[in-house]
Amino acid sequence: MFVEKIKELLLKKDLKKLQEILNSETPINIAEFISEYEENENDILIIFRLLNKEIAAEVFAELDSDLQMKIVGSMTDSKLQSLLDELFFDDMIDFLEEMPSNVVKRVLENYKNENRSLVNQFLSYEEDSAGSLMTIEYLSLKSNWTVRESLTHIRKKVKDLETIDVAYVIDGKKNLMGDVTLRDLLLSNDEDIVENIMNKNVLYVTTSTNQEEAIELFKKYDLIVLPVIDKENILVGIITIDDMVDVIEEENTEDFQKMAAMAPSKEEYLESSVFELAKNRLMWLLVLMVSATFTGTIISKYENIIEQMVVLAAAIPMLMDTGGNAGSQSSTLVIRGMALGEIKTQDWLKVIWKELRVGLMVAIGLGFINFARMRFILKQDMKISFLVSFTLGAVVVIAKLVGGILPIGAKKLKLDPAIMAGPLVTTIVDAMALMLYFYIAMFLYKDVLNI
Amino acid sequence: MFVEKIKELLLKKDLKKLQEILNSETPINIAEFISEYEENENDILIIFRLLNKEIAAEVFAELDSDLQMKIVGSMTDSKLQSLLDELFFDDMIDFLEEMPSNVVKRVLENYKNENRSLVNQFLSYEEDSAGSLMTIEYLSLKSNWTVRESLTHIRKKVKDLETIDVAYVIDGKKNLMGDVTLRDLLLSNDEDIVENIMNKNVLYVTTSTNQEEAIELFKKYDLIVLPVIDKENILVGIITIDDMVDVIEEENTEDFQKMAAMAPSKEEYLESSVFELAKNRLMWLLVLMVSATFTGTIISKYENIIEQMVVLAAAIPMLMDTGGNAGSQSSTLVIRGMALGEIKTQDWLKVIWKELRVGLMVAIGLGFINFARMRFILKQDMKISFLVSFTLGAVVVIAKLVGGILPIGAKKLKLDPAIMAGPLVTTIVDAMALMLYFYIAMFLYKDVLNI
Repeated sequence: MFVEKIKELLLKKDLKKLQEILNSETPINIAEFISEYEENENDILIIFRLLNKEIAAEVFAELDSDLQMKIVGSMTDSKLQSLLDELFFDDMIDFLEEMPSNVVKRVLENYKNENRSLVNQFLSYEEDSAGSLMTIEYLSLKSNWTVRESLTHIRKKVKDLETIDVAYVIDGKKNLMGDVTLRDLLLSNDEDIVENIMNKNVLYVTTSTNQEEAIELFKKYDLIVLPVIDKENILVGIITIDDMVDVIEEENTEDFQKMAAMAPSKEEYLESSVFELAKNRLMWLLVLMVSATFTGTIISKYENIIEQMVVLAAAIPMLMDTGGNAGSQSSTLVIRGMALGEIKTQDWLKVIWKELRVGLMVAIGLGFINFARMRFILKQDMKISFLVSFTLGAVVVIAKLVGGILPIGAKKLKLDPAIMAGPLVTTIVDAMALMLYFYIAMFLYKDVLNI
Repeated sequence: MFVEKIKELLLKKDLKKLQEILNSETPINIAEFISEYEENENDILIIFRLLNKEIAAEVFAELDSDLQMKIVGSMTDSKLQSLLDELFFDDMIDFLEEMPSNVVKRVLENYKNENRSLVNQFLSYEEDSAGSLMTIEYLSLKSNWTVRESLTHIRKKVKDLETIDVAYVIDGKKNLMGDVTLRDLLLSNDEDIVENIMNKNVLYVTTSTNQEEAIELFKKYDLIVLPVIDKENILVGIITIDDMVDVIEEENTEDFQKMAAMAPSKEEYLESSVFELAKNRLMWLLVLMVSATFTGTIISKYENIIEQMVVLAAAIPMLMDTGGNAGSQSSTLVIRGMALGEIKTQDWLKVIWKELRVGLMVAIGLGFINFARMRFILKQDMKISFLVSFTLGAVVVIAKLVGGILPIGAKKLKLDPAIMAGPLVTTIVDAMALMLYFYIAMFLYKDVLNI
């Protein structure tokens, strides 16, 4: 509806009606329309110029960097100045981080804001740090104000604030003394003094805190905003939960990628270059390929057994796949449990004990079903049916233990547990599965085989 | 610190000091302490009785259902009544959902609240529906109120509300007419009428909307609260972002589980029973085991080739593993991209084209490295080095295409794309890899082999 209407008005060049419709739409929807509009680049610039400046700033913040660059490139300096004034500080930093240096230079020349010197400082915060996530539009109160003065202050300031749910009480040096929720202010009497109603046990992070730690705090304490202080204990910004939701999904995406043996990347799939995607995948494939050749050498070593009993080869894919899958299941659960803080390294004994029992149950189930299949459906002989089914069960138990313990070991060694996922576990379990298989085969067939 | 202090005071039986310390601590930390405290069950009940009733309600909401049941069991009816009165409605529903029917009955008998009849209705909402996530403590305003009247109303009601960021404007029949943020109220003049400042395009869901759809709205529009209406368009509750964060992690956990070939489960790993874990894993392992036997039949079919050239067997693990890994990488990226709404089914051609090029790049890289390894390091002969390396490259390209397209196909067929992840893709690619391997071998060695 909205999309067709806009297209029609653009065609008719009815800019007045277009402006009216655009400015009654949500910025998110306008940004989505612009991002997916491919007909004519000039139209995008026309649409953007028709927006009220507050809406324009919000739309701009939602666009990807290619479009941001185009729009900034088409703007006069004075238009650029007014756009920058409307942008929330964190959105401006996000935008600048993606721009080439000549654009950054032009933007900074046009940024006539009191916070100009802060920009360079913010650009220097490390990716994935609390500093890189925060914004400076927080609400601060003086400790000796009354509730009435505070509420008046809030009404005056609210337009420029990212959130008003929590106010921070600071002293003359901007040291963080406490916080007070808007809820508490509204619950108090107009004459109460802020110092007497504020909470002094404020949760906070520093600019260099890793974003994963910040996420933990948000989740554990159901926060909606978290203050950030610098090395001198001065309040420098806040992180709000809407940004945190994006970060949570980013961290999950990285875990998915690592667990499928890829270098993590923040870029969307369809926007990543082919070269980038190939690069992220090649290194781990290579490592795993070389490890898998070790499994191959086990087969080579027992070549003469296969030569004498080539029927043994047919079960190899099933043993390898089932071992790999059983191990992946366990490692996935343990990695995820650690990522959510539900499993800690000191729980390793509990995990082993649990995986041992689960493994035995699954092993017995799969072993019997496979035995029945080979012996009674395929009518294979007793010995080979037993060999394959017993190895299968043993492999499942081993796989469960390996898959359960490797991620915890990685964490203990300060490595990322997510690398100990399906692919690596599979390679390790495959080698063990084949060794076990040939050992048991040699034992069962020692009279027949010429070893 | 806090933990040791509590333990010490319990030992000394200094209940007065204990009460003081407990009531200055955050409910989350108290709940954590209680959950991890294993020394003496009676102490837990003592601690709980010392808490102020507001704190007690918040602590109670954080505990798991076993502890909740114990605490409720030890309470007199009048204590239970006052606990229920303090609980937020959604926390009470969450608690009741986990209780056996005799406990539910006793609780309902003691719930003397005006919302009592709502409880049964809430308990009937389906799991994973918006209805099961919402709470009834929302802020509503009348359209003809002034801003001053609204703010006075908010100050009166704030104590019992889950959030005051957004107020909902309703008519006499509780139909949702619009919403207005506290920010807008504070920005307006005291004499402005609510109807004139409210936003009429309210985003909402219905009680039966799936929670994934609600998550999409939260993420897309950076919401902090979302209203829920029933079939008659009557406002019945709100969903707040802190609950949504938990749901996002739950949905991610389910995806991790499905992608590692397990039935999804909401229960924490360490709290799941061994039987439950085994059951969740067995079904998929069985399906994949049977599929993998198909790969085995390919080996059986070419048994005589292996018998004549047993050296061919050594490369099988490496080809299978690399194919599986290459396929998992692609399927993981596509599944994740679809879960985040970045890849849609109509993008299938873009995905194929991208995977084809990435696959070729990776194939050439791995193929050459493997050729160099076999020919120059292991000094194997030209033909076998070429056979394995060429098959490897071809398998990688096929795996990338299969891994990229299967999840999209699943979505198109209204299946969950997450099942088309590593394990299933590996099984399919393994079979293809072996067929290709033997075909090329027969072609290359047709003079040598007796087929």
